[in-house]
Amino acid sequence: MKISFVIFDQFTDLDLFLPWDLLNRVRVVGKHPDWQVDILGTESSHLSISGLRVPTSGLIDEVEDADAVLFTSGKGVHPVLHDQEYQKRLKLNPNKQLIGSICSGALLLAALGLLKNQRATTYPTSRKLLAKYQVEVVNEPFVNNGNIATAAGCLACQDLSAWIIRSLLDESMVQTVLNSIKPVGLKAKTL
Amino acid sequence: MKISFVIFDQFTDLDLFLPWDLLNRVRVVGKHPDWQVDILGTESSHLSISGLRVPTSGLIDEVEDADAVLFTSGKGVHPVLHDQEYQKRLKLNPNKQLIGSICSGALLLAALGLLKNQRATTYPTSRKLLAKYQVEVVNEPFVNNGNIATAAGCLACQDLSAWIIRSLLDESMVQTVLNSIKPVGLKAKTL
Repeated sequence: MKISFVIFDQFTDLDLFLPWDLLNRVRVVGKHPDWQVDILGTESSHLSISGLRVPTSGLIDEVEDADAVLFTSGKGVHPVLHDQEYQKRLKLNPNKQLIGSICSGALLLAALGLLKNQRATTYPTSRKLLAKYQVEVVNEPFVNNGNIATAAGCLACQDLSAWIIRSLLDESMVQTVLNSIKPVGLKAKTL
Repeated sequence: MKISFVIFDQFTDLDLFLPWDLLNRVRVVGKHPDWQVDILGTESSHLSISGLRVPTSGLIDEVEDADAVLFTSGKGVHPVLHDQEYQKRLKLNPNKQLIGSICSGALLLAALGLLKNQRATTYPTSRKLLAKYQVEVVNEPFVNNGNIATAAGCLACQDLSAWIIRSLLDESMVQTVLNSIKPVGLKAKTL
């Protein structure tokens, strides 16, 4: 299985790194050696909003090879919303791939036409803009329609990651992964 | 203010990246331009347990200049537990600095003699080893003794980050930062 994240300059750190860590745990903790997680972009590295330079492992053109594609968030999503050349490179197939977004990454899904007349969620500061794409914007942490899902609020990346793992593997692996990051000594659900 | 993370090869991604994101939000969201967060190591970059190469901004010798120093976790902590040269470079001053650890990072604090006869927490798989350093190991997400704190279970990095921000700034900034990562539409405490 191959999961690909799409990042850009000025991406929100945690919206990449929380699901990145969780999804890699399928291989690291869950012992699935053929479970691969990639970070794709338009450059060999991208700079996060906190100032961390993160290497990419491939170009965005590779999204077509992934079983699941996740779009991260941040200020850097705005320039690509009107970049037709960029969007043409994203050869997605929602009939065969799981496609998800976190926070303002939903804007790119909308620009690609993937959320039209659908319910979806995004970070509060992006709600008005998302609604302009004929999207029914709701105030929920996670919204799933078939092979497409949107999550909002960094910690909701737990829901997004759980959806990917449940869809491609099973609920047992979801619990293995989510339990491994819980605060020690707490029994309550962390989300 | 300057906060420094100490990493090494085979560090646990989320134990760096969750507090890294939260603490940077003091500058990015909280508008404190003089709030600096660094990542220190022994090389110009270190490889995470998930396989991400993360650049460092300085060497571990620089910990003495920080207001707060946070030790991350992972398999890579074990080689330095017996490395006297490495430990000599960590010129820490618990009378002037806040010093914290997440998960197995507590082992390094213990090796440095900072947890002797104190209560502390660590990831379950490190409990036995931590207890060998004359530490009273408890099953709690966060333990604070004066200027030293230990957190365990990745999501407890929220407690650790809150402690740093509360100690160096105030509770209002803690809430600003923690609220900015909550899942949208949820009112419950996320930790």
